[in-house]
Formats: sequence, structure tokens, C-alpha cells
Amino acid sequence: MTVSRVVELEGHIIDSGMMQAAFGIVMDLGGSFDVEEFRVGRSKTEGSYCRMTVTADDPEHLQSILHELHQNGANPADPKDATLQPAPRDQVVPEGFYSTTNHPTDIRVDGQWIEVERIEMDCAVVIERDGNGDPARAYTKVLNAIEEGDLVVTGEAGIRVRPPERPRGKEGAFGFMQGGVSAERPSESTIERIAEAIVETREEGGEVLAVPGPALVHSGAREDLARLVRDGYVTMLSAGNGFAVHDLERDLYGTSLGVDTESLDHARKGHKHHIYTISEIIRAGSIPEAVEDGTIESGVMYECVTNDVPWVLAGSIRDDGPLPDTITDAVEAQNAIREQAHEADLVLMLSTLLHSVAVGNCLPSTTRVVCVDINPATVTQLLDRGSAQAVGMVTDIGTFVPTLAEKISEKG
Amino acid sequence: MTVSRVVELEGHIIDSGMMQAAFGIVMDLGGSFDVEEFRVGRSKTEGSYCRMTVTADDPEHLQSILHELHQNGANPADPKDATLQPAPRDQVVPEGFYSTTNHPTDIRVDGQWIEVERIEMDCAVVIERDGNGDPARAYTKVLNAIEEGDLVVTGEAGIRVRPPERPRGKEGAFGFMQGGVSAERPSESTIERIAEAIVETREEGGEVLAVPGPALVHSGAREDLARLVRDGYVTMLSAGNGFAVHDLERDLYGTSLGVDTESLDHARKGHKHHIYTISEIIRAGSIPEAVEDGTIESGVMYECVTNDVPWVLAGSIRDDGPLPDTITDAVEAQNAIREQAHEADLVLMLSTLLHSVAVGNCLPSTTRVVCVDINPATVTQLLDRGSAQAVGMVTDIGTFVPTLAEKISEKG
Amino acid sequence: MTVSRVVELEGHIIDSGMMQAAFGIVMDLGGSFDVEEFRVGRSKTEGSYCRMTVTADDPEHLQSILHELHQNGANPADPKDATLQPAPRDQVVPEGFYSTTNHPTDIRVDGQWIEVERIEMDCAVVIERDGNGDPARAYTKVLNAIEEGDLVVTGEAGIRVRPPERPRGKEGAFGFMQGGVSAERPSESTIERIAEAIVETREEGGEVLAVPGPALVHSGAREDLARLVRDGYVTMLSAGNGFAVHDLERDLYGTSLGVDTESLDHARKGHKHHIYTISEIIRAGSIPEAVEDGTIESGVMYECVTNDVPWVLAGSIRDDGPLPDTITDAVEAQNAIREQAHEADLVLMLSTLLHSVAVGNCLPSTTRVVCVDINPATVTQLLDRGSAQAVGMVTDIGTFVPTLAEKISEKG
Amino acid sequence: MTVSRVVELEGHIIDSGMMQAAFGIVMDLGGSFDVEEFRVGRSKTEGSYCRMTVTADDPEHLQSILHELHQNGANPADPKDATLQPAPRDQVVPEGFYSTTNHPTDIRVDGQWIEVERIEMDCAVVIERDGNGDPARAYTKVLNAIEEGDLVVTGEAGIRVRPPERPRGKEGAFGFMQGGVSAERPSESTIERIAEAIVETREEGGEVLAVPGPALVHSGAREDLARLVRDGYVTMLSAGNGFAVHDLERDLYGTSLGVDTESLDHARKGHKHHIYTISEIIRAGSIPEAVEDGTIESGVMYECVTNDVPWVLAGSIRDDGPLPDTITDAVEAQNAIREQAHEADLVLMLSTLLHSVAVGNCLPSTTRVVCVDINPATVTQLLDRGSAQAVGMVTDIGTFVPTLAEKISEKG
Repeated sequence: MTVSRVVELEGHIIDSGMMQAAFGIVMDLGGSFDVEEFRVGRSKTEGSYCRMTVTADDPEHLQSILHELHQNGANPADPKDATLQPAPRDQVVPEGFYSTTNHPTDIRVDGQWIEVERIEMDCAVVIERDGNGDPARAYTKVLNAIEEGDLVVTGEAGIRVRPPERPRGKEGAFGFMQGGVSAERPSESTIERIAEAIVETREEGGEVLAVPGPALVHSGAREDLARLVRDGYVTMLSAGNGFAVHDLERDLYGTSLGVDTESLDHARKGHKHHIYTISEIIRAGSIPEAVEDGTIESGVMYECVTNDVPWVLAGSIRDDGPLPDTITDAVEAQNAIREQAHEADLVLMLSTLLHSVAVGNCLPSTTRVVCVDINPATVTQLLDRGSAQAVGMVTDIGTFVPTLAEKISEKG
Repeated sequence: MTVSRVVELEGHIIDSGMMQAAFGIVMDLGGSFDVEEFRVGRSKTEGSYCRMTVTADDPEHLQSILHELHQNGANPADPKDATLQPAPRDQVVPEGFYSTTNHPTDIRVDGQWIEVERIEMDCAVVIERDGNGDPARAYTKVLNAIEEGDLVVTGEAGIRVRPPERPRGKEGAFGFMQGGVSAERPSESTIERIAEAIVETREEGGEVLAVPGPALVHSGAREDLARLVRDGYVTMLSAGNGFAVHDLERDLYGTSLGVDTESLDHARKGHKHHIYTISEIIRAGSIPEAVEDGTIESGVMYECVTNDVPWVLAGSIRDDGPLPDTITDAVEAQNAIREQAHEADLVLMLSTLLHSVAVGNCLPSTTRVVCVDINPATVTQLLDRGSAQAVGMVTDIGTFVPTLAEKISEKG
Repeated sequence: MTVSRVVELEGHIIDSGMMQAAFGIVMDLGGSFDVEEFRVGRSKTEGSYCRMTVTADDPEHLQSILHELHQNGANPADPKDATLQPAPRDQVVPEGFYSTTNHPTDIRVDGQWIEVERIEMDCAVVIERDGNGDPARAYTKVLNAIEEGDLVVTGEAGIRVRPPERPRGKEGAFGFMQGGVSAERPSESTIERIAEAIVETREEGGEVLAVPGPALVHSGAREDLARLVRDGYVTMLSAGNGFAVHDLERDLYGTSLGVDTESLDHARKGHKHHIYTISEIIRAGSIPEAVEDGTIESGVMYECVTNDVPWVLAGSIRDDGPLPDTITDAVEAQNAIREQAHEADLVLMLSTLLHSVAVGNCLPSTTRVVCVDINPATVTQLLDRGSAQAVGMVTDIGTFVPTLAEKISEKG
Repeated sequence: MTVSRVVELEGHIIDSGMMQAAFGIVMDLGGSFDVEEFRVGRSKTEGSYCRMTVTADDPEHLQSILHELHQNGANPADPKDATLQPAPRDQVVPEGFYSTTNHPTDIRVDGQWIEVERIEMDCAVVIERDGNGDPARAYTKVLNAIEEGDLVVTGEAGIRVRPPERPRGKEGAFGFMQGGVSAERPSESTIERIAEAIVETREEGGEVLAVPGPALVHSGAREDLARLVRDGYVTMLSAGNGFAVHDLERDLYGTSLGVDTESLDHARKGHKHHIYTISEIIRAGSIPEAVEDGTIESGVMYECVTNDVPWVLAGSIRDDGPLPDTITDAVEAQNAIREQAHEADLVLMLSTLLHSVAVGNCLPSTTRVVCVDINPATVTQLLDRGSAQAVGMVTDIGTFVPTLAEKISEKG
């Protein structure tokens, strides 16, 4: 005896690969399906619709197929309310909790679809009802934020995932690079498009979050990033202790460090400057105090302080120091990064794997992402997270940032 | 008017490149030198000796040359006591503090040379005198451990650095791979030598520290590392939250995860298991409690717990969870890693850049290091720290660890 | 006024991504479409069918859409005979010639569909009719083989491309690694499957073509490949001059070279042996003569000669020598490689980009390919050619080949 | 009973690492040595001198040590004439032939030191005496150029190798990047120095040889390289069939290809253009004829033809076509490349491993080399050939060449 269920796919189900994925899932997992209805949107803007009956051997089998379909945007045609269960303990999820994707998601509560706030992948969804008849709210919580008694969505019922279509055609600054990463694209014109996207984002009042690694300073692009902060094209910064120390060290020990970054022979002396720099900031109290008392007079951190650009410096186990401004607790740092990620409209990941992954983990799939690294594996890893609006460039940060800054100032 | 100073180089100054480095430094920095005496050790074990007068334009110029010479093992011929200055504040070093290398180092205090304990690079040296006429002690302190009033070594006087010679000839398991990293070496015989070095280290009662990344679990080598722990060939473990979760998840959700690591299609479902795993450990209280209550029954962490192999799990901003056993504060985690690094006699860095750098930062240059990664840049970066006893292999952790475990069990 | 045409897709059009590709192409190129009929194969073996009307602005526009559709397996519903035009000159194709994919392809001649023989990408299709009423033949020709007067297929009419479905489910040794390359798969079990595929191929009387690079010799895996040749698991060899010289040199100067491959210090001395080796083979006349006169007594080339395994050594501009057996003309060498490629049932690409590309260029998409390299970019590039049966492994040839040989001898 | 011999080192023996290498060789190979005299050049321009007696167990042992010393620039203090033996056959070297390094080398013939012309590594040295009392000549011959009866230098006697010192200090455009390859250098200022070196080379009437790969065209830098040819900064070109076809295709099918290089979706259509392009050139007869008849109107090959910049196109087994201008025989192509390499004063290796290796094989160690590739392993491999004047950059050719062209036009 077999069991079956009707599921629907709606929207840009062909462009986004949803339909192919759905058919593949059913077959891979050993089920079968009948396409009941299939309408194709004629134009790029018109959505498509597919309704199909999925059949499996037994309820458990069906459930596992529906689970995978669901993660890929195929939702039951006869929606029920989501199942809610209280968290048994702090930091413990109820059995069968629903783990989010990074796509826009709705939860059916009391017969109403409500959108999940602050969507981000690998979270639980918590439902809040105030009891005053106001509509419920749904939002994500990471595991360590779960509190005993939180109403957590479990199972698959009453959940609707909407994977964004990949933009087609030439409209939009990011329409140009779907479908993979390549070192063999015309670099100058790709950077031109990224510059357009940044200018556009800022003109619309959006936030641009830069996530730079220390290599940015080594490679000589520090001044150019500082200029982007000063000119208002970068409005938030997320980095590590190492980036900040390198940036500050360049200000404090400019000349001699100039030599160091050009000649590996003297790298160790540069490292002493590293420790001195941290020591100087500790003496001043913090980076803003060091800016205020005139110790620090230029650079990315300087521009952040003087232009009120919010920044997060997250610590790691390989840090020297760290600076007094660095958040050393990983959970606390993640929370600070999460706030930035949810505010950002465009993210520039510049040659840092650790911090880019941390930011990327918190991003909805609808946020624009530009990822630049000399290592193709890093770019691939960062883009491989289902972002619908991602551009990867395998290139040298030391030529990328100056070229970007120049193209932005031409447009801005 | 010029100024000059006599410096000496002693030991394996030719093998280690010290002499060439010293001559180069003087010339690069615009000084000149007269070799007063030069004796070459005839055999591999006999040391050499070089005494030379270094001349510069003015005292400052001379000082900068002497500084670089010093970092490379050339010490003034007329030793004075080291200069000591109290730290002005917590976490602030006095001006001109001496920043350590990772080579064995002596400090001259009260006319006596004393060896710096727990040598590690980029630290300050603190001198402790008890005032009872007992000999003073010298040891390293990282910046954030400096306390107000600590007697910190400053300047260059009274400090003797002894860069280890590179082992020559064929004796010793590690004599075979000096001079670079290469993917084009005979892999099987290289692994054979590493196996010999591990067995030898254990026979002499030394400690073997493994530093594995999550890729070790993905690539199917988890059972082999678990066996090395169980059989006593790995005696300490330093890893991240991610490694432990992957290892535990494999135990808890074995079968289905088996599918996942073979097929990227289902990677996201695997991620849900990831969160479940953390949730289960939180429910149990900790990893040891999960082992005790029978939740966890196999794997690397299981073997560590049941065989009393000490482990450190360090947190990072990209972690899920984290596990209750993970140290989330970066400074605290570094301190735990530092303890392990100073006890280790041989370190196996297995496919993790972040944790390998953190451990490597704390190692003296005399500790044996084996670094294995599929990415040549990672191997190069990790070996590029002046270790005299380092072996790098650009290879696949999924074939390396099983082959290593097999070769060890043949020998052990 | 718009123009339209009915096209059909048939077979595993969902699994293979054909349908999604077809819809995408029409929309990307600014056309529109109506799905007239759409039937989905219920099971994995049952094919699907889609008939749709494609509409464009003008005939040229329609043609460009049909061209792209065609390359991706969507064929006009009302088939006409293919258009044939004589080649105007040797090595010159007629305007609008049809350039092949590497997928199985049929040509409609005189109302009959005939399969293109020796399909391979980027070729012209030549039709041969003997005039005796026998059915026509269709086969590929590379540009430089075109002769004046050859009847070359032009345009898109009367051509049917059949992209193979990607194998689904777990059946078949190669069902396990569709959808990408990864360094994070369980290496041992992947090699196990490859071993199974080789044994299976040989049991069915198929040909296994090995394409090794010189790194195979450096990394110590030469004996293992020699064994595979001797035991009949490798039945054809395609390599470069460099591979053969390294292999022969190992035989001639074994002991001293043993030292060389372990220590980069002596690499140059090894190079002198390289030249000597070539000189010795020239003195003997050729590799087979050197085997016969006892100069060469072991290794991969030795086993090829003594076991009548056909080999091709292709020259390149970076070669030393070359050996008298090396084909120095690129066109002649390509032709020899082409013969091998068309006979092969399974191809092992072992750490050589140049020769793997040369072989890969001539392979139909239905041939099984295993590609192993330490560099992920190489593996990606080699697999990125539409092969339906390709496995990529990012791993070390020095552990891969010994493990493979062992697993084969367990099974064989 | 031991045997010994006095050897001398002269010149920049400390800077170049010769002395350290010499001491290390003796010890590694189990010999011993006495330093008889040791004078250090005080300044950067003054050379040093070291005379030492090397002692070994028996004549054969001594010989092996002297051989290695010799390859590294330590020459016997009591020079004898070189031993000359006739080649026994075409393409066969006499036993014990001397295999060259790429360093400047002298041969002692009839009591006179004569410099080896056209020095290049892994060659034999042939001596020519005309018998009229004119001084003899010495020059290199590759193995396949050896003719029966050629007087070939054998053994080690009467040969003097002069490894160039590494430039120290800041003078010279290439003094800035000794000691390795790094992605973490200030890119803009590095490119600035390379631009200076090119301008300087041209001002002194030197030849600049560009060795570009097809990625240069994909990445959008074709116009910039064409400009460098037109403006006289690139005076020779060495490339493969693929580069030329891509360059010509861009000219012939500009617009549509513009789309192709930005969107991987249409890569296959681009490939058809590839074949068309070759077909068109074959129709015209050759590239120069295609330029003359107006078929080709822009690009790198166009500028080479119209500016009389000599070019070599070498074939390979992965080529399509090839073009009628491509030299398909590897030996013939090598000879053409060799001519270019010996004339070049500065070589730009731009994103092609195969052709860069082929050129690099023929270069003396004194020629300036700039090597640019996105893959660090490629850069390392190309620089790892003992060139004293090499700069490596791990960067994106698509930003490097435009930046270089701009900086050159600022200076030129």
C-alpha cells in the first residue's frame, strides 16, 4: 500500500532549477510522481506553476521525500498550520525541529502565513504570540539562543520556502555572472559592474558591509578601502583583530613597514611592530581613544571612527594581543556579526575565509554578495551557499580594490 | 666618524644559514664588516665559529644592524647583562621590549646566562628574581599576560639566540625532507618515515599532538585517527568545535551521514544532523557525559574520553552551537592550546589552517612538526615559521591517515 | 510579425537538465514558448517527452534560438534531411558547418536517421554515400582532415543530439559521484568504486586507457602502474616524452635517482640522468629495442613492451631529447591519441593536464573517465566537458595508484 | 688513505649562497674540508674569495663531491684543460658528458678560458677549433642537435661556472623581490617596478619577449597587450596556437564573443567560432595574408604583423586546427623558441605554463624574467630555475596587463 501527497511549486521554478531539483529528489529517493498541472510562465517576469502527486511506499518514506522537496521549495498543496513544540531546555531543540534554509520562508500559524523575520540558515524558527489577538511573529534563533519554553516549529507542515529565481537577462548589475566562478572572465568589466552595484546600493540608501582580511593591507590596498569608507561607499565593517592591527601598524610605523611588506627578509621586524601597535592601543584605551588622542591618523579603522561607520572586530585563536576593541568570545562576536549581516544590502568579502564564512552564515539568500580571493577554492566555498545574487572573482585584492575605488569615484 | 662592535656567531652557523644571513644583513643595511676569525667545524657535529667587527655610520645605524644580526643568532662578543624594565601597565610592554623568536634563547642576568623557559615567538621575556640569592628565571609572556611591574627584557644586550642547525645526513626520521614542500615526492616512503618518527617519539615517552580539521571526518579517515588515539600513538588532541561535531555526528547519525558525505546533494540534511548532534550533547551535559551515558559510542572524541587523552576544543566565529566543551573565548582557548604546544614532542597538523596556525604560533623551533594538507599554500604557510624539524606533505588526508595508521601498526 | 517552430525533447530530459536548459535558452535569448505537451517518465528508466512551440521576432532570431536549443538536445518536431555542402578546399569548412558536441548524434540523410560514427566534439560531420544504394555513413572529421569536396553537414536541420542522462540511484560503479568534484569525500571508498569499475570493464572485455604524467614516477607510484599493465588492467597507454624518460631513467639509474626524488637538493644531478637516459635509448634505437637488448628491465614502458600494450608518446615543446619513440608532430600525435580515445571504455587521467586534455578532446560523452590530480582546478577543467560518466578525485597520485592497485588485486 | 683537491670560490659567493652551498655539499656527501683562505668583500660590489681543500675517502668519492661543488660554482684551484671527446653518433653524447647549468660558464681549452656561447641548461658543450690558430669557440648543443664527431666536453675539469649573485640593495628595478613568491605584496607598486624595468630595457635597446596564454584574451586584457606591441614595448612574441586563435577570433567575431567570455552558458558557441576562425585563416593562407587582405583588423597578432614584431606559434596536442602559421613539430618549434630566448633581455610570462616552461628552459640565468599567473604553483615552478633576476606575481592577468600598460604609458 502506498501513500501520497499533492505538492505545489510556484514562481520561477524553471529558472531557479526548482522543478528539476524536485523531480530529481523524488526519483533519487525512490518515490514516483504524477504531474497534475504544469503551466509555464511565458516571459521572464511571469511565474510558472506545477502541481504534482508524490507517491511513496509508506508514511515515513513519504515524509523523507517531502522533507527534501520542502527544503527545495516544493510545498504541500493542502497547507496545514505548522506544528509548534516548546523547547525542553535552554539550548536544546525539540525533536524534529525545523532547520531553516537561507531563503525567504513563511510559517502558517492560526491559518495565516507569516514571514520569518531575520531568515538565516541552520536556525530554529520561534513563534511568538502575545495573546492580545495581535498576529503572531516568527523569527529565527540560533541554537545557543533557544530558551526553555520557546515555541519552536517542528516537522514540515505549514512551512513555505521560496528559493529566489536566478536573475536572467542583462538587467541588474548582478545579472552578469550567474552560474559559477571563473578566473577567465574579463576582469575590468566585471569590476565595473560591481562598482555600479555599490553606487546603486548607496543611492538607494542601502548598507554596504566590507569584510576585509589582513592581506588587503599587505597587498597595498589599504588606502583605497579607507577612501571607500571616507566617501560613504562602505558603511559597515566586519573584520578580525589581525586586519585592524595591520591597518593601525601601517599608520604607526608607516615607513619601515613599507619596506617590510615589500621584502619578506624583514618580516620578523614587522611582527615586532605588530606587538608594539597592540601595546600602543592598549595604552590609549581603545581604537577610538587612540584616534581621539592623535595616536592614529589614517587608515581604514581611522576612517571608520571619524565617519561613524560601525565596525565589529572578532577575535580568533591565532590573534596576537588582542586589541581591547576585539570581541574575544566567539558567541558574542557571532551575535555582533549577525546584526551587521541582517542590515547589509551588499557584502564585499575581501580575502578572508574565516570572517567571510562567519558573515555568510548569517545572510539571507537575497542579499547581494561579492567575494574576491586569489584562491579559487575560497571563492567557490563562499558562493556555494545558495545566494541568488552572488559574484565571485578569483583575483588579486591588491589590484581589485584600487580598480574598484577608481571606478566608483568615476561613477559616484 | 663611524662606530663598530664585535659580534660572534657560534655553532652550526653554516648549515643553518646563519653566517650567510649575517653577512647579508650587514651589507643590506649599508654597514661593513671585517672577519677577524673564522673556524669551520670539520664534521657534521663540530660547530663553527666566526668573529667579526661590524661598522656603521652612527650609533643608531649600528643599533639597527645589531638588532637584525641578533634576531639571526649573531651576538655581541662582549656580553653585558640584559636590560630589564618594569611593564608600565597590565598588557603594556616597556619601550624597546625584546620580541622573541621561536629559537632557544638565553638571557644574561647578573653575569649568568639563563635559558628562557617556554620559548615561543612574538612574546616578551620576563625575569623573575626571588631575592633569596637563588638564580633568576626567564620565561616568555604573551602581551595579554603582562602584568604591571613585570621585569621585561628590553634592547638587544645580554640576549643570545641559538637557531638550530638543519639536520644533515640521513640519520633521524626527519632528516629527509629539508628544503621545501613538494607534491612530487614518493608519498608512501615519506609516510613510512613519519610513521617511524611517531613510533620513535612514543617509545621515548614523548607526546604526540594531533590537530585535525573537519575534512578528516568527511574524507573517511575518522576511524583511523580514532585507532591512533586508542593505540596510544596520539596522546593529545587540539581541534575546533567543527571537528568534534562532525566526529560525534558520524557516531550518532552514522548510516544516513554515510550517504551524505558521499553525495553532495544531501549536504543540507547532514547539516540538520549537525545541529541535532550539538543539541544532544547539550542535553547530555558535555562530551564526557555523553560518552558515559552511552549516547556516544565511537570515534575520535570517544577514544579521547575513554583513553584519558587530553583535548582542547577551541571556538571560532563560524561555529554552529557550540558544544558545551568548546572554549569560546579566544584568549582562554589560546592559553589551553599553548599548554599543549609546550608539552608536545611531535605535532600532526591534519587539514586545518586555523588551528594549525594557533598551535604553530606557540611551538619552539625544535619541536617536530608534520603538516598535511591538499592545499600547497597551506602547507607552505605552516612550515614557513623557522621550524628546524618540519615535514610538509601536499596530499589527501583521506588516504594519508589510513596509510599512516597501517604503517604505524606494522611497526608499533 | 513573429515566426515559430515546434521542437521536441525526449528521453531523460529532466535528469539531464535538458528541459531546464531549453526553457532557459529561449528566455535568455529573448524568445517565448508554449509547452504543447509534457509527459514525465514515472520511473528512472522511463523517458519523458516535451513538445513546445518556440516563437521569435524574425527568422534569424529564431535560428539563433534553435541553434542553442539544438546543441542542448532539443530537436525540431518536423525533421528534415540535413543540409550537406562540399568543403570548398582542403582544411576549409563550408559556411555554417555544424560543429559537433561529444554526445551521441544522428543525422537525417535521405529520410533516414544515421548515427554519427566516432563522435567527438568540435568536429565537422562528413556524409559518405557510395551511390550503390547502400545506406549513407556519417562520421566526424577534424578541421585539418577535411578534404576538398567532402560532403559536410551544415545548419541545424536533420541533426539530433542525445545528451546522456546522468545516472541516478546507486546502481553502477559510477553512480556515486555525479555533480561535482570534492576533496572532502571518503577517499578509500571512492577508490574502491573506481577499482570495481576497472575490474568490471576488463571482465567485459573493455579497454582501459591510462594517461599518466611524470609526477606519477616522482611520487613513487611507478611500480604500481607497471603492475596494473602487467596484470592486464591497463590495456593502452597515452603519455608524453617526459613520462617515458622518467620511467626509463628510474630503471637505468635506480639507486642514485632514489636519492634524487627524495631530496630536492640533488634534483639537477637527476636531470643529467634524464639526458643520459634519452641518449641510451637513442643508442639502442628505440624503447622496444632497449627492452630487447636488456638495457631496460622494469617499469611501465617495459611492461607495455613485453605485454604488447599499445602506447602513444606525444611530444611537446618542453621535452628534452626527445626519445626516438616520441611523435614530435602535434597533428600526427593527435591522430594517434584519437585512435586510442575511440577504443577506450574507461580512461584513467593521472596527474597530467596536457595529455588529459588531448585525450579528453577526442572522447564521446559516454566514455567513463576517472581524473586524479592534486590540483582541484585541473580536475574541474577536465571534468567540465559534459561527460556523463566522470569521476574526479583531488588527491595525491602517490597514494592513489598504490591504493588502487591493491584494491584491484583484491577484487581481480 | 684519503684523497684531496683544492677548490676555489670567487665572486659574490656569500650573497649568492655559493659558499654555504659548497660547505653543505661537502658535509652532505661525507667529505671534509679545510678553509685555507677566506677573504670577504667589504662592500656590495667587491667580491669575496675562499680557497679550501676538500678531502674524501677515495678518488671516486672525491669526484662525486667535486661534481656537485662544480655545479654550484666551486672550481678546482689548479685548472686543467677540459676533456673533449667526439660524439659517437648523431644524438648520442659521449660517456660522462658535461651537462650545463644555465649560469655563465667558461671552458679551458689550450690553456685559455673561453666563455660558452648561448648558455642554457641541460645541454652539452661543443668545442670548435678551426685549426688556423684562431681561438676555439665553445657553445651549447641540445641532445638532438649533436652530430657524430662533435667535440663534446666531458668530466668536470677545465669548466668554470659563475652563478650570478642575487642583486642586493635597492638599485635596479628587480632588486625588490628576491626570496620568493607571494600573493601578499603591494601589487600596484610591484607592477610599477616591472613597468620601469620594461621601459628601461627598451631605452637601452633591449628585447622584450611576451609569452601569453589564451587566458589573457578571456580575461579582457588583449587590447592592452596589443597596445604594448604597437608602442614598441613588446618586441617579440612566443605563444601557442590557442592564444593566436583566441586573439583572431575576438577580431572576427567580436560582438558575440563579447557575450561569450562574460557568460559561460554560451561557451560552446564560442568554440564554433574558434573553428571558423582557423578555417578563415586557412582560407586566407596565413595570418599575415589575413592581415593584408583585411580579414584581420585588430589584436595582438595584427599588431605583430603590422609592426614587424617576430612571433613564434608552437603547436601542441590539445590544439584545434591548427593555424597554418603554427609550427606543429615540437623539435622545430623548440628551435624557434630557443632563438627568441637567447635574444631576449626581459621575458614576460603571462598565464601559460607550457610555453613559459619551454621558453624558460632556454634562458640563461642572467635574463630578467617576470612571471604572472593566478596559480601560485605555476609561478613557483617557473621561478624555481635559478634565475637571478626573476619576479613572480600571483595575480589576475585581467587586471595585471591593463595596469602594466597604463603605468608604462605614464613612464614611456
